[in-house]
Amino acid sequence: MKLTIDRAALLKSLAHVQSVVERRNTIPILSNILIEAKDGDSVSLTATDMDLDIVEQVSCPVALPGAVTAPAHTLYDIVRKLPDGASVELTSEPEKERVTVRAGRSTFTLPSLPTADFPSLASDDLPFNFTLSSAELKALIDRTSFAISTEETRYYLNGIYLHATQQPSGPVMRGVATDGHRLARVELPLPKGAEGIPGVIMPRKVVLELRKLLDESDGAVTIGLSDTRIRLAFGAITLSSKLIDGTFPDYERVIPTGNDKVMELNRNSFAEAVDRVATISTEKSRAVKIALGTNGLTLTANSPEAGSALEELEVSYTSNPFEIGFNSRYLLDILKQVQGDVAQFIMADAASPTVVRDRADGSAIYVLMPMRV
Amino acid sequence: MKLTIDRAALLKSLAHVQSVVERRNTIPILSNILIEAKDGDSVSLTATDMDLDIVEQVSCPVALPGAVTAPAHTLYDIVRKLPDGASVELTSEPEKERVTVRAGRSTFTLPSLPTADFPSLASDDLPFNFTLSSAELKALIDRTSFAISTEETRYYLNGIYLHATQQPSGPVMRGVATDGHRLARVELPLPKGAEGIPGVIMPRKVVLELRKLLDESDGAVTIGLSDTRIRLAFGAITLSSKLIDGTFPDYERVIPTGNDKVMELNRNSFAEAVDRVATISTEKSRAVKIALGTNGLTLTANSPEAGSALEELEVSYTSNPFEIGFNSRYLLDILKQVQGDVAQFIMADAASPTVVRDRADGSAIYVLMPMRV
Repeated sequence: MKLTIDRAALLKSLAHVQSVVERRNTIPILSNILIEAKDGDSVSLTATDMDLDIVEQVSCPVALPGAVTAPAHTLYDIVRKLPDGASVELTSEPEKERVTVRAGRSTFTLPSLPTADFPSLASDDLPFNFTLSSAELKALIDRTSFAISTEETRYYLNGIYLHATQQPSGPVMRGVATDGHRLARVELPLPKGAEGIPGVIMPRKVVLELRKLLDESDGAVTIGLSDTRIRLAFGAITLSSKLIDGTFPDYERVIPTGNDKVMELNRNSFAEAVDRVATISTEKSRAVKIALGTNGLTLTANSPEAGSALEELEVSYTSNPFEIGFNSRYLLDILKQVQGDVAQFIMADAASPTVVRDRADGSAIYVLMPMRV
Repeated sequence: MKLTIDRAALLKSLAHVQSVVERRNTIPILSNILIEAKDGDSVSLTATDMDLDIVEQVSCPVALPGAVTAPAHTLYDIVRKLPDGASVELTSEPEKERVTVRAGRSTFTLPSLPTADFPSLASDDLPFNFTLSSAELKALIDRTSFAISTEETRYYLNGIYLHATQQPSGPVMRGVATDGHRLARVELPLPKGAEGIPGVIMPRKVVLELRKLLDESDGAVTIGLSDTRIRLAFGAITLSSKLIDGTFPDYERVIPTGNDKVMELNRNSFAEAVDRVATISTEKSRAVKIALGTNGLTLTANSPEAGSALEELEVSYTSNPFEIGFNSRYLLDILKQVQGDVAQFIMADAASPTVVRDRADGSAIYVLMPMRV
């Protein structure tokens, strides 16, 4: 293999694919990326962790087609440190297990591993195919991913649950995540081709990688889905991942429908006040207390060591006075996703789940368990 | 005590003083700062770790003079989170061990400790008094501090050695730091009042705090010195610190005078090449090898796992071909301090210390021990 590629283009693509490569691998080939130059004018870079694959195409003149594997992080570091505007030559000779990187008066020789050892990617036929815009997918991820559980024992909560359902307004696609303390559910119109999709759990790692990549993308994302795999293609990138083999809990049961105490308040002022008051709450609980009365809202925190904090806020609230406590970090996570000016809290009592909504946007709903304070 | 202070002014000053306060303290009062409002129009904030003290004056109307102590990091966090433009009211009642922070509709009550428990600062009479510009002091610190040893057993190397000496050009003040692997020595004209100062070792912590503070200062720094203390005053800030009670080694012996192999090269190109090649060198040694010949300089690194790297560079060198190895990080630390375009390396052989100079500026000299490669 022999090809010459613009440093900036190679760097951008390596930044994407090396991110999928884990820092420590018990299987050596998983530390490598596969570089394949099949034809005369493009090269593909592939990385995998056996669950999640990424393939990116980069245009470049190929002098000699071929394939080679190279250590992902080392290659990325080298290309990152090459001067802006450099032209990078990649060469390999099949019988020698190494790849050479040349640019200007720099030459790097990196150990390679046989391309035959590189895992072959799944090419399952995916029965469902549909399209979402980057913006829709970003919103779906942002409004749910903070609630994904990190508890490995509850592996079926370690992702976003995607499924189709019927609403009075028409068929919708839903993304749901929960860690048992809070739940986030977002809806968007069901795209064409997604009718009858199975309910699937998209793992945290593909969610996070996808979200980073979408920051550089504003086009459409083509999604292929089966009940075991998801494939997302956008721009020159294809991400493909196993889905979590588990059953997402019946989350609808958790979303209360009978709550009757409605409080509305400015999202920004509330978030800033919660953040300030939380300075005082103990590191462990991060609890803040909300007291609702006829004169507005009082937000407090107390800790035996750090003292006490009290903030008064304007609020629209007409039910009976009452008190409720929350984990301040969970509150802030949700308030950050409210896009409009007004956050709406729909509560029952100090021990039952509270519903939070964006008054300006009905597509997302959040459920937050209170804390005893 | 009762005073009202602009949030921005208080925040700036708290950022300075809280930095001296250690995160963990076995003596509780050392987690607090002392807030003293003596007269009608200013307040002083004081922090100490028993070795290093900082006092900063801030202008503000004082309604009721007095003093109180408050937890440094908590107070800083609260003020940081208050809205821009806020006016902050600090109040304390002497008999109650607490301080109240009010701004807008926020109220924080923080535990206090008796002001009598706050360590009284040393007010030794310092026999030597002189002035350096902020720029001189910044340059002195930048060109030496990277070489300060972090080995606690060699406590006499844990700072910058300051002393006065005579050069053919006249009397100079010198700053020297070394960790046994590299040495940095910088000179500046001896300021008036510094004639006959003792050789003193300024501890790393005061060096680092001072350097941060000087980023916001461009005026003169008034320095008071005895053989056990240093005091630095600039703007509204006074830093005062114990000096290291130890003997700095006879560093002159380490600076070779008979080296005869002179190589000159572009600082930037060399630093970038060293950084690239070091990608391949092992994490532990970080070794890079320089081979000097009639055709220029070849920079290489090898590691059994990561492969090999080779860079060719233009160099001015007329002595015999030879090879020498260096720790790449140490090389980069020095090259970063070379201000001119050309770095000059004056070498003897592969086992003896190399001298590095900035060809455009004779005030700094660096010594670097080679590595066997």
